[in-house]
Amino acid sequence: MPAKDVPDIVVSRLPLYLRALSFLAEEGLQVISSKELGHKLGISPAQIRKDLSHFGEFGKQGTGYNIQYLRDQLRRILKVTEEREVALVGAGDLGRALMHYGGFSGRGFRISLVFDNNPQKVGQKMGPFEILDSGSIETIVADRGIEIAIVAVPAEAAQEVVDALVRAGVKAILNYAPITVKVPEGVHVQYIDPVIHLQRMTYYL
Amino acid sequence: MPAKDVPDIVVSRLPLYLRALSFLAEEGLQVISSKELGHKLGISPAQIRKDLSHFGEFGKQGTGYNIQYLRDQLRRILKVTEEREVALVGAGDLGRALMHYGGFSGRGFRISLVFDNNPQKVGQKMGPFEILDSGSIETIVADRGIEIAIVAVPAEAAQEVVDALVRAGVKAILNYAPITVKVPEGVHVQYIDPVIHLQRMTYYL
Repeated sequence: MPAKDVPDIVVSRLPLYLRALSFLAEEGLQVISSKELGHKLGISPAQIRKDLSHFGEFGKQGTGYNIQYLRDQLRRILKVTEEREVALVGAGDLGRALMHYGGFSGRGFRISLVFDNNPQKVGQKMGPFEILDSGSIETIVADRGIEIAIVAVPAEAAQEVVDALVRAGVKAILNYAPITVKVPEGVHVQYIDPVIHLQRMTYYL
Repeated sequence: MPAKDVPDIVVSRLPLYLRALSFLAEEGLQVISSKELGHKLGISPAQIRKDLSHFGEFGKQGTGYNIQYLRDQLRRILKVTEEREVALVGAGDLGRALMHYGGFSGRGFRISLVFDNNPQKVGQKMGPFEILDSGSIETIVADRGIEIAIVAVPAEAAQEVVDALVRAGVKAILNYAPITVKVPEGVHVQYIDPVIHLQRMTYYL
């Protein structure tokens, strides 16, 4: 189903739809119109209908979307119907915070390996995990067939870590380090940059 | 200048332009076309031109944008020409990681107060800061006239913290807790949700 020609910008909105629909389903709602959904998300109803039309017919004119059905379809489209293993690199403050983060559960991801390059940390426990040496990323991540990684290391270490992850076969990297990293074609990187979000608000101050 | 009728979605892209232009300026580049900028950002050149046209004329047909000039204008539009004080709530792992984060500097923000509700942490030092009691958010943040806050507390504590920040006069809140919070009209909230970014990549796996 992932039609090759769906624009990235459309794909980037699907997780927002999924999050809103999951929330509505938990609240016990059954149906929502594109207008109501658009109002919640600050996205025009026409845009929502157009985005979803890339993947099929999900609502009937005038009756709105079945929330659970559309949620399940979006999970399938985004390939998060089951939990995927994630390798976490960086057992510092941020790594520990991510390990305890309550937002992964039920949304398609589970941290299952933790790496750090600090010899004093390697072999120690962090939550349920033994911290592994970053030098073994290439072999261990490849052996486990893990395709997703989170990079929570300082800026100066990020590129080296990303290179090792790429050699291990990782295809999707979420980078918290405040630096743009280089990856080969076919590897996806997303950035967590709190300043982008802060600047989206200062405009209105 | 912030024209009242600029759509939120346009405003949300300005920080991405600013980040890219700042990076290009650091690299020593002087001029960039909307086509090149669009290619870097995965946004169409027409969209970039249209977004910027809300705020004035920044480029000449065929010659591209002056990078430093456009960067400075975007800083002005986003009101980040000077550093703004930020109150951080939550002195846990994530709070510590944010305090050490290297990405705020020079981009308009400086954490200047840290709060926590744990009596064992209150009065302790975290980096250069003495951790303050969350119970004093309302008075201290108001006294300092701080308008921006970062919430790095567990989900179950987030709404209460947000309520106190709002009473203190905070107008922009960056929320890391995996929960949607309620705020009155005129207060802005942005969410850091790593799952949204991960799901943007699993589509392609």
